[in-house]
Amino acid sequence: MAAKLKTAIFGATGYSGLELVRILERHPRVEKPVLLRRPGDSSANSRTGDAGTTPNDLAEIFPELSGNGGYPLRAMSWSELKRQGIELVFLATPHEVSRALVPEAIVQGLRVIDLSGAWRLKHERHRAVYGFEDVDSAMAAMLMERAVYGLPELNADCIRKAQLVANPGCYATSVILALVPLLSAGVVDREHGIISDSKSGVSGAGKSPTPRTHFAAVADNLSAYSIFEHRHLGEITEQLGLDDEQLTFTPHLLPIPRGILSTVYVRLNRAMTVAEVDDCLRDFYAGRRWVRVFPTQKLPQLQFSLHTNYCDLGFRLAEDGQRLIMISCLDNLMKGAAGQVVQNMNWMYGWDEGEGLH
Amino acid sequence: MAAKLKTAIFGATGYSGLELVRILERHPRVEKPVLLRRPGDSSANSRTGDAGTTPNDLAEIFPELSGNGGYPLRAMSWSELKRQGIELVFLATPHEVSRALVPEAIVQGLRVIDLSGAWRLKHERHRAVYGFEDVDSAMAAMLMERAVYGLPELNADCIRKAQLVANPGCYATSVILALVPLLSAGVVDREHGIISDSKSGVSGAGKSPTPRTHFAAVADNLSAYSIFEHRHLGEITEQLGLDDEQLTFTPHLLPIPRGILSTVYVRLNRAMTVAEVDDCLRDFYAGRRWVRVFPTQKLPQLQFSLHTNYCDLGFRLAEDGQRLIMISCLDNLMKGAAGQVVQNMNWMYGWDEGEGLH
Amino acid sequence: MAAKLKTAIFGATGYSGLELVRILERHPRVEKPVLLRRPGDSSANSRTGDAGTTPNDLAEIFPELSGNGGYPLRAMSWSELKRQGIELVFLATPHEVSRALVPEAIVQGLRVIDLSGAWRLKHERHRAVYGFEDVDSAMAAMLMERAVYGLPELNADCIRKAQLVANPGCYATSVILALVPLLSAGVVDREHGIISDSKSGVSGAGKSPTPRTHFAAVADNLSAYSIFEHRHLGEITEQLGLDDEQLTFTPHLLPIPRGILSTVYVRLNRAMTVAEVDDCLRDFYAGRRWVRVFPTQKLPQLQFSLHTNYCDLGFRLAEDGQRLIMISCLDNLMKGAAGQVVQNMNWMYGWDEGEGLH
Amino acid sequence: MAAKLKTAIFGATGYSGLELVRILERHPRVEKPVLLRRPGDSSANSRTGDAGTTPNDLAEIFPELSGNGGYPLRAMSWSELKRQGIELVFLATPHEVSRALVPEAIVQGLRVIDLSGAWRLKHERHRAVYGFEDVDSAMAAMLMERAVYGLPELNADCIRKAQLVANPGCYATSVILALVPLLSAGVVDREHGIISDSKSGVSGAGKSPTPRTHFAAVADNLSAYSIFEHRHLGEITEQLGLDDEQLTFTPHLLPIPRGILSTVYVRLNRAMTVAEVDDCLRDFYAGRRWVRVFPTQKLPQLQFSLHTNYCDLGFRLAEDGQRLIMISCLDNLMKGAAGQVVQNMNWMYGWDEGEGLH
Repeated sequence: MAAKLKTAIFGATGYSGLELVRILERHPRVEKPVLLRRPGDSSANSRTGDAGTTPNDLAEIFPELSGNGGYPLRAMSWSELKRQGIELVFLATPHEVSRALVPEAIVQGLRVIDLSGAWRLKHERHRAVYGFEDVDSAMAAMLMERAVYGLPELNADCIRKAQLVANPGCYATSVILALVPLLSAGVVDREHGIISDSKSGVSGAGKSPTPRTHFAAVADNLSAYSIFEHRHLGEITEQLGLDDEQLTFTPHLLPIPRGILSTVYVRLNRAMTVAEVDDCLRDFYAGRRWVRVFPTQKLPQLQFSLHTNYCDLGFRLAEDGQRLIMISCLDNLMKGAAGQVVQNMNWMYGWDEGEGLH
Repeated sequence: MAAKLKTAIFGATGYSGLELVRILERHPRVEKPVLLRRPGDSSANSRTGDAGTTPNDLAEIFPELSGNGGYPLRAMSWSELKRQGIELVFLATPHEVSRALVPEAIVQGLRVIDLSGAWRLKHERHRAVYGFEDVDSAMAAMLMERAVYGLPELNADCIRKAQLVANPGCYATSVILALVPLLSAGVVDREHGIISDSKSGVSGAGKSPTPRTHFAAVADNLSAYSIFEHRHLGEITEQLGLDDEQLTFTPHLLPIPRGILSTVYVRLNRAMTVAEVDDCLRDFYAGRRWVRVFPTQKLPQLQFSLHTNYCDLGFRLAEDGQRLIMISCLDNLMKGAAGQVVQNMNWMYGWDEGEGLH
Repeated sequence: MAAKLKTAIFGATGYSGLELVRILERHPRVEKPVLLRRPGDSSANSRTGDAGTTPNDLAEIFPELSGNGGYPLRAMSWSELKRQGIELVFLATPHEVSRALVPEAIVQGLRVIDLSGAWRLKHERHRAVYGFEDVDSAMAAMLMERAVYGLPELNADCIRKAQLVANPGCYATSVILALVPLLSAGVVDREHGIISDSKSGVSGAGKSPTPRTHFAAVADNLSAYSIFEHRHLGEITEQLGLDDEQLTFTPHLLPIPRGILSTVYVRLNRAMTVAEVDDCLRDFYAGRRWVRVFPTQKLPQLQFSLHTNYCDLGFRLAEDGQRLIMISCLDNLMKGAAGQVVQNMNWMYGWDEGEGLH
Repeated sequence: MAAKLKTAIFGATGYSGLELVRILERHPRVEKPVLLRRPGDSSANSRTGDAGTTPNDLAEIFPELSGNGGYPLRAMSWSELKRQGIELVFLATPHEVSRALVPEAIVQGLRVIDLSGAWRLKHERHRAVYGFEDVDSAMAAMLMERAVYGLPELNADCIRKAQLVANPGCYATSVILALVPLLSAGVVDREHGIISDSKSGVSGAGKSPTPRTHFAAVADNLSAYSIFEHRHLGEITEQLGLDDEQLTFTPHLLPIPRGILSTVYVRLNRAMTVAEVDDCLRDFYAGRRWVRVFPTQKLPQLQFSLHTNYCDLGFRLAEDGQRLIMISCLDNLMKGAAGQVVQNMNWMYGWDEGEGLH
């Protein structure tokens, strides 16, 4: 067997980073990743509450990792990374940090998968979403162009050759995968408008303690937020070739730690049968192992996809044959983040798409 | 002060019944209600698990009631009820039981508030929903006609004089109250279709233990169910004067004990401003204390209405001025069931609408 | 009926404060309380997340309160309070704030119920618990002496005449009420040691968002904390006349918003029968309406006491007649905080102990 | 590499069975197991609620399994199993079913790991616990003697050679692993009595819907049950060489799907230091990878061990050096059931103890 790939992770101290560490650890073709400390990252937000101290090992922040031999957090320059033979870097950092780090990594000849939103949006109309300057630099402009949106069910070919993969948002993955077969088949009445009523567990909001993530504010509750203005909206419309006004996207915060369920409402432009819709989905996802199209008489539930890399799809069609409701479920930390990262890596290195993900 | 009203409850052993007992107990104009045992009601489903024994007191089933002096469960004939001076009977029984009991009670001259769906639907097209024979009897046919749909924000005048009030479904209350001001104002594009994506806590599914209500099947989960075929659909369209196809209603089961949040999607038939929508809601609900229209910059959350009789409304309007999203929250056991029962009773007896409900 | 009592609350922006506002609002002998803003209290920690703005009304922080006519937050001097006829002040403030405010209030002739731990501990050995200077002032020393521990089941006579009532801790109430009948009866083997394994919902940890109270750190979890060093330990041993070493107290954080269940392990100094233990409890709590002693064949569950002012007690006795396990349940925001405050107030003003608490 | 082991599972339709299927699927030395249908097993209790139909594939009951190629449920005779080369059978069946099936399997020369309590207890004093006849047959008596209690941290040598392994109870594993190092070291005051206050998630109560496992009865609740009479008590005392009266074991039902935390109270027979206790634990578990002894300044939390095969241990020692509190956490479906099964299998076949468990 060939030598194992060497990788490094910036930002392993968040939920997605932890999940990524856990997957890579079991991946047969990858060495245990180098964990990089960001300058000034004091990681006070650990559950253990040891504010102010800088952890030297990820297991100090996530005691669940202890017993597997250590996860040292290192400070390291790009050139040092190169010298150590690292080829691929994962960024699980806030978008403004990713925006700053990625050009440096690319210049060094490293390949990058970025989990933030920093490099996902191409259209000028979305430039303001993440608050970056019009074009912050020629390098950034070029990278923006060359970054590949890392949804393998859409872009596997580009991902294979990409130097910079922008890993999709969790909500975006859930909505795009529900819609793309129907839109590709040209059966959607776009003018009528599409609605995605999406519900997410709390880990999607990050690990920082805020009034919104306080247990008592989430438990026994449900709330809608960022209606008409969530950052993932542009990501979805760009990938699906929709005008922004053609999609209404309503996120809700669920009282569960993880998982997303999107209920997507579509008007078909002609009456279809259940079998036709089913065929449309199955044809599109034939050979795509990480999307499970449920039998027509069943619907996926959020729970079924937890701790897996699957996106589960099901649907119901009204008697009129035109009102279609898609149900799309995934684990926001897996197919919505770290699992998809690994799926992308598998494509980038020509490995089986399922490697390390079962 | 006048003598207190005497009432009786059939079916106090369920969640809504318990809630009703608790409210009536604090109501200044009502005596502690007589609790009626249904023939053959063994109530084995108590949390205390004493299957097989017939409880003699509601506190045996709900130990939270103990300490307040006893809640005897009695078997009693209609004539005995009359003799004891009882004027009003509450039925918190399954719809087929209500269907059988109500005519008997009406014949005796009792007034009735029925919490089941048995008497809510008027249109022929909905006759099959609860599985009753086409018209099961002349008496039933007449009662069907005369039963008043017990949503005081719509029907206060009829409720005041009603002998039989059909208390609305929990989902139905949530959706109707969100939509009725806009539909009344004639600003909704009905042809475009209305969508209510509704989410409910588990108590809405009743107290019987089933695979669907098992803790492990609900916790860390979310699931859609009964899409295009939920019983409350007809109730909503009848009250709102919609064709059934004009409303898409999607219920979901939330991992919380109680509460409903409906996200309702409406296309306005002309561009409106936020202030206009706000006015429309406030005008309609002026003087209606149990609907709280939130300030335009805030949205209600499910939690805010728990353990209250409020239905909370808020909205967001897209920049195009036509895509409107209503958020409607209530406690399914209060405004969605027992609270609304008491609100109806207050109207029936000419009392203040808030009596006993704070 | 006599004129209603005028009261004021410092610190209504926390969980206990909110609960207190809600109870007082329904209390027939008390006016709607004046809500006092603390200097510098920006209350950024609201769920609505409007950091940085100073709320002018409690309903801005707790939207669940809206619709009842306004809860203005006021800044007011002690003398102004007096001038307005306020007689009783409630402090739901951190202990160091209470320590500073109480002497000022007392000097003005106000009566005070303090929900913090500032004035609960009398013994020198516990002086360090809340970090106050040995004796911070002569006034403080005197108040420390005169403050009455506000557990009406123990101290009703003193509470009646008290100027300063130190409202007990939530855990402390749960443990003391489980143990005091047995200790009073002299049937406990103190030398053997008593253990209270206590479990509390998250509201006990306050409203500030911290890593420990983040939803994802609490949900699907249970953790023990502050073993051998929790502040309530001294409170319990002082009230029960135990040496600190005679009680082992282990708090745990439950994944629920509210409620405490304590499992208390006692060795009896002689073999007793179930009936004898039952009699001991019932005799002690005869006439005490806020403690419910469960029938011997039943055990209280945490859920039964939620949203009530009850402390529920039950027990199991080993065959040897000496190993006794008490189960004690209460709502930490009611009998463990705001409910008990009102119970104390009822005693202070000679009203029925249940007034306003049903 | 040698040919893979062929195995079969009876009772894969429960929670432990599902977990076992998932682990075996990833185990590098085992073929995908044959799933056996019990005669008359209609498995109506699936979440999908298709009561009355007999599923042909485990993925019909657990849709989360779909997409991996099928999990047919088969009816098969013992001789057929033999003919197919199956060597090891797992029983995830109720104890009375295991009691009936095991002798048949043993006679056929199969090795068996039984997850039920049927073969765990050796002492005459515990014979009644599972309701079996005094000695139901000579065969049963012999098997009772020869069955090995499958806790590898105690009995690895016997497990290696065992034909019948009785997999320990989940609570029992949690309590035994907390206590055995101290008892072995002879530092525990047994006469003083040991207390285990244990808390378990709902999956420990099985998949059958009952009033006790209804979501609304578990959520926002905590309850103690089976005090002084839980079946695991005898298992623990037998393994630890205690008299039944020396251990007080109090199970509680937590509002979470899975996980156990036991808080174990021990009186040491002499004052010890923290370092001494720590050494005692570390010495005992040296080389035992599935027990993690936490650093003395940290405590395990239930969450840390979820979805792993670890039992996590931590402790706190009172200043007197004698009152010791052990915290023991594990996942009841992993180290408390299916994970431990696989750990036992690894020992039985001489493989690395961690094979398939990461």
